[in-house]
Amino acid sequence: MEKTVGVLGGGQLGRMLAEAANRLNVQVNFLDAAGSSAKQITNHDGHVEGSFKDSEAIQKLAAKSDVVTVEIEHVNTEFLEEISEMTDVQPSWKTVRTIQDKYLQKEHLKKFDVETAQSIPLAAPTKDELAKAAKTLGLPLMLKSRREAYDGKGNFPVKSEADFDAALQALGANKDLYAEKWSDFKMELAVMVVKTKDEVLSFPTVETIHENSICKLTYSPARGVSREINEKAQALARKAVDCFWGKGVFGVEMFLQKDDTLLINEIAPRPHNSGHYTIEACPLSQYDAHLRAILDLPISQKNLRLREPSIMLNILGGETPDSHIQAAKKALELFGGEGVHLYGKGQARKGRKMGHVTITAPTMAEAEKTIQPLVDFMDQGKAKASDSPARKIKEQPLVAVVMGSDSDLPVLRPGLAILDKFSIPYTTRITSAHRTPTWMAEYATAAADNGIKTIIAAAGGAAHLPGMAAAHTPLPVIGIPVKPTIGDGTDSLLSICNMPKGVPVATVSVNNSINAALLAARILGSSDAAVRERVEQYMRDSEKEVREKDRRLEEMGAEAYAEKYLKK
Amino acid sequence: MEKTVGVLGGGQLGRMLAEAANRLNVQVNFLDAAGSSAKQITNHDGHVEGSFKDSEAIQKLAAKSDVVTVEIEHVNTEFLEEISEMTDVQPSWKTVRTIQDKYLQKEHLKKFDVETAQSIPLAAPTKDELAKAAKTLGLPLMLKSRREAYDGKGNFPVKSEADFDAALQALGANKDLYAEKWSDFKMELAVMVVKTKDEVLSFPTVETIHENSICKLTYSPARGVSREINEKAQALARKAVDCFWGKGVFGVEMFLQKDDTLLINEIAPRPHNSGHYTIEACPLSQYDAHLRAILDLPISQKNLRLREPSIMLNILGGETPDSHIQAAKKALELFGGEGVHLYGKGQARKGRKMGHVTITAPTMAEAEKTIQPLVDFMDQGKAKASDSPARKIKEQPLVAVVMGSDSDLPVLRPGLAILDKFSIPYTTRITSAHRTPTWMAEYATAAADNGIKTIIAAAGGAAHLPGMAAAHTPLPVIGIPVKPTIGDGTDSLLSICNMPKGVPVATVSVNNSINAALLAARILGSSDAAVRERVEQYMRDSEKEVREKDRRLEEMGAEAYAEKYLKK
Repeated sequence: MEKTVGVLGGGQLGRMLAEAANRLNVQVNFLDAAGSSAKQITNHDGHVEGSFKDSEAIQKLAAKSDVVTVEIEHVNTEFLEEISEMTDVQPSWKTVRTIQDKYLQKEHLKKFDVETAQSIPLAAPTKDELAKAAKTLGLPLMLKSRREAYDGKGNFPVKSEADFDAALQALGANKDLYAEKWSDFKMELAVMVVKTKDEVLSFPTVETIHENSICKLTYSPARGVSREINEKAQALARKAVDCFWGKGVFGVEMFLQKDDTLLINEIAPRPHNSGHYTIEACPLSQYDAHLRAILDLPISQKNLRLREPSIMLNILGGETPDSHIQAAKKALELFGGEGVHLYGKGQARKGRKMGHVTITAPTMAEAEKTIQPLVDFMDQGKAKASDSPARKIKEQPLVAVVMGSDSDLPVLRPGLAILDKFSIPYTTRITSAHRTPTWMAEYATAAADNGIKTIIAAAGGAAHLPGMAAAHTPLPVIGIPVKPTIGDGTDSLLSICNMPKGVPVATVSVNNSINAALLAARILGSSDAAVRERVEQYMRDSEKEVREKDRRLEEMGAEAYAEKYLKK
Repeated sequence: MEKTVGVLGGGQLGRMLAEAANRLNVQVNFLDAAGSSAKQITNHDGHVEGSFKDSEAIQKLAAKSDVVTVEIEHVNTEFLEEISEMTDVQPSWKTVRTIQDKYLQKEHLKKFDVETAQSIPLAAPTKDELAKAAKTLGLPLMLKSRREAYDGKGNFPVKSEADFDAALQALGANKDLYAEKWSDFKMELAVMVVKTKDEVLSFPTVETIHENSICKLTYSPARGVSREINEKAQALARKAVDCFWGKGVFGVEMFLQKDDTLLINEIAPRPHNSGHYTIEACPLSQYDAHLRAILDLPISQKNLRLREPSIMLNILGGETPDSHIQAAKKALELFGGEGVHLYGKGQARKGRKMGHVTITAPTMAEAEKTIQPLVDFMDQGKAKASDSPARKIKEQPLVAVVMGSDSDLPVLRPGLAILDKFSIPYTTRITSAHRTPTWMAEYATAAADNGIKTIIAAAGGAAHLPGMAAAHTPLPVIGIPVKPTIGDGTDSLLSICNMPKGVPVATVSVNNSINAALLAARILGSSDAAVRERVEQYMRDSEKEVREKDRRLEEMGAEAYAEKYLKK
């Protein structure tokens, strides 16, 4: 490929950008110290040795690069503005300048009607000014440095007036500060956005878990988040990025508030920690996307799909200088080191980002099972997190077993035992079509977005639940006719089976929850080889069992067999 | 990581090994010319400049590497033997020496009872010797150079005695030659095998398509190959590799013969072209695996699973010096350049391996659709292939619609129209449970291995087909009761639905092939977002249609409405 790229900074983001560039044979010149992370994997004479804070070095980089981009937003944008006369700077220095000042960033977003937290700049870093802001925003509030703030540095939660002194002291008396309205969020989400010359695309929504204000884990798709919110988050992220200048990928961090509204937290004008998972989980990674965007190479929304559910875990510098190496070795030992990235950074200061791991699996439940022992290993002996501890991992159900009444539960239990035997995570719910029609509709409507892949519904008599669930979901619904107190259950069976054209229910025989569960396993198994293997094993076992009975029957004769085995 | 690796050769295989090593921060020293493909992405002072044919250079490399491995088997194994006194050589020089002489390789395999083609060495490259071999092996036969043969170089098909002169001339009069029994294969398969200190693991079986004896495409999983053959191929490959010395990955090429037996074609003691797809398609790539094997890092069979079906297409040097760049650009234009690798090799000689592309997709059908336009682009203006042209790509059916008799077809047609509407590839077959019981069983048994994900079975009266199919497959089976000439079809419905515990059939109402098709779509959609989107669209459309009818009914009144719309 013809064009060369120049990057201010050569840390891990540059290194992973270089991986993407190496595959397309695009030369990337890094401005950083010799031997920096990114330079270790790019061997050519286009690099510049020095600091991205040095104007002369930046000029030198610009002179040998067709497009200059940044790995970090805390650069001198005057220098960027200067070189944009001689070369293409992406994204624009205006974007970097606006974003690097968090207060300006928020003001800019507001100008374009992008939902973000209310913010008030402090004219001076004094208690009086802070008190003024508190009067408008209420307490608690978040006091923040306008610049050079990342990974929680530069943020101070102010819970009451008693915190004023400590907050001002912590953030430095001579810094530009601003106060931000406290956000009562239930979850943090992030979306990587790709701004090309023509359009704005987005990667899937991820759930981010922070610990001590540093990103610890990301989950994609976000767990338990409906598709509606998922899409709203992506739309909001695209809208936010659309109001900036230039091209490239942007990391957009958001709060999902308790009332299910979304608020932009902050934006990074570059590849971002919350997008690392894309390397393994998507056909193009955020680095591939950044390269395509700044070089005007083609890219489309289709390239940004999720191949498999994924979890990313950061490897931070720990208690000892080799804690991160120990973590990588543990990942090798636990699961062959799938998705391990070590950045080749020198000193492992505590909390410094030294690497990460991305696991993908056919289901989130499986990914969680794979990564949990590594999370536990890294949490060992760690002081309790001071904020946002990682939520305890809960298995994502794949099958929803719904019934109109708890009186159907006894019929369902043999089926639940089969799901247990097959290690298929499920949830059991009471959603009556007749007594809770709205709740039933809501539950069925949200099921697919909540990660459910198949619904099993039991009903007797009028037996409307399976059909009504099917009317509200695009998922396969399996109906179990339950034998009512009057009649043999054929009425239930026909009620469930005789659905109008357009809305199918997969009907099994009366009270046969075992077959319903096996059908759910076959459905999951049609796209998950591990589950299919369990179905096959079940079939082999069942064959063996019947053959054994046949052997015995032949051996013993009918009389003795019936005597021994068929007696009640 | 502590150990450093040395590699003889620094071409594309070395480069991709370096990608894997970079992620684990393992230093890899390459012995090759300055600026070689692999050195471009590894920036440290451990490289050795020179040729992997130079003993002194090899000594130098060995002195600075904890483990030495090869990127190519055509090395001087005396030199390898020498350095194995001072450092760890993996795989062993004995392995490389045995494999690099194709005749010795085959003799070695035979000694260990590994199925491979019968071979006879020529004492001298003369017509007499060739005639002697032909007498034993029959004609046609394959005349081969024992050494330095790859990508079809060094092979000459000898069809009759008239070819003797041309064959001897083509392969060189002073070369060691051997004759190999002609293999009447229907397909070429390959398996990457990982030999660790403790065990022998294998990646999935791939189908390889050669053109002019150079690998053109690989498909994983191999198309239309049963799981039984798949597993047999992997077992054979592991058995073959198990009889060699040392550790590392091995590429094993095989012939699947017309009688479904397998024969080893040849083995490469290193990462192999047929394993490139693993970079995108598997949690660990063949390069990750090689590194783990030679460094005694943990790896397990689980790491080698397929994430998604994949197709790899080689980018060869073409008619013009930039043909490969044009191909890469086309890949960018067509599908964002997913999985494009350019190797950074200098001159693009015609037929030289300059890069490759790996596409993955939720189904093989989709991967085929994505890559086909690129294959067409690269085939443009190309002289017709002289041997093994790529099979025309045929869409892989995901749904099998089976019926006991063609009289059921009219009932099925509305359902087939739904599958068409949803772009779900399907196949329709007649497999009667009563008139072709063995064929029915065979078909159902093989369906899952042939890539089918759901079976729709129609039957009337005794209606045994759905249940019998379910008894022979782990896939979900959807049963459509067909209304027989006598009765209303309830008998068919109950026959299909009332399956014994252990073997489920998803039953829909009488003659309702539409619901059967929609159920199949929902099943596929539970793991394929694109199909699920189509199901949702169908539900929205259907809702709109009914709402529209409601509007008209209200507007016109019942009388007029019935007059206008319900008249026959």
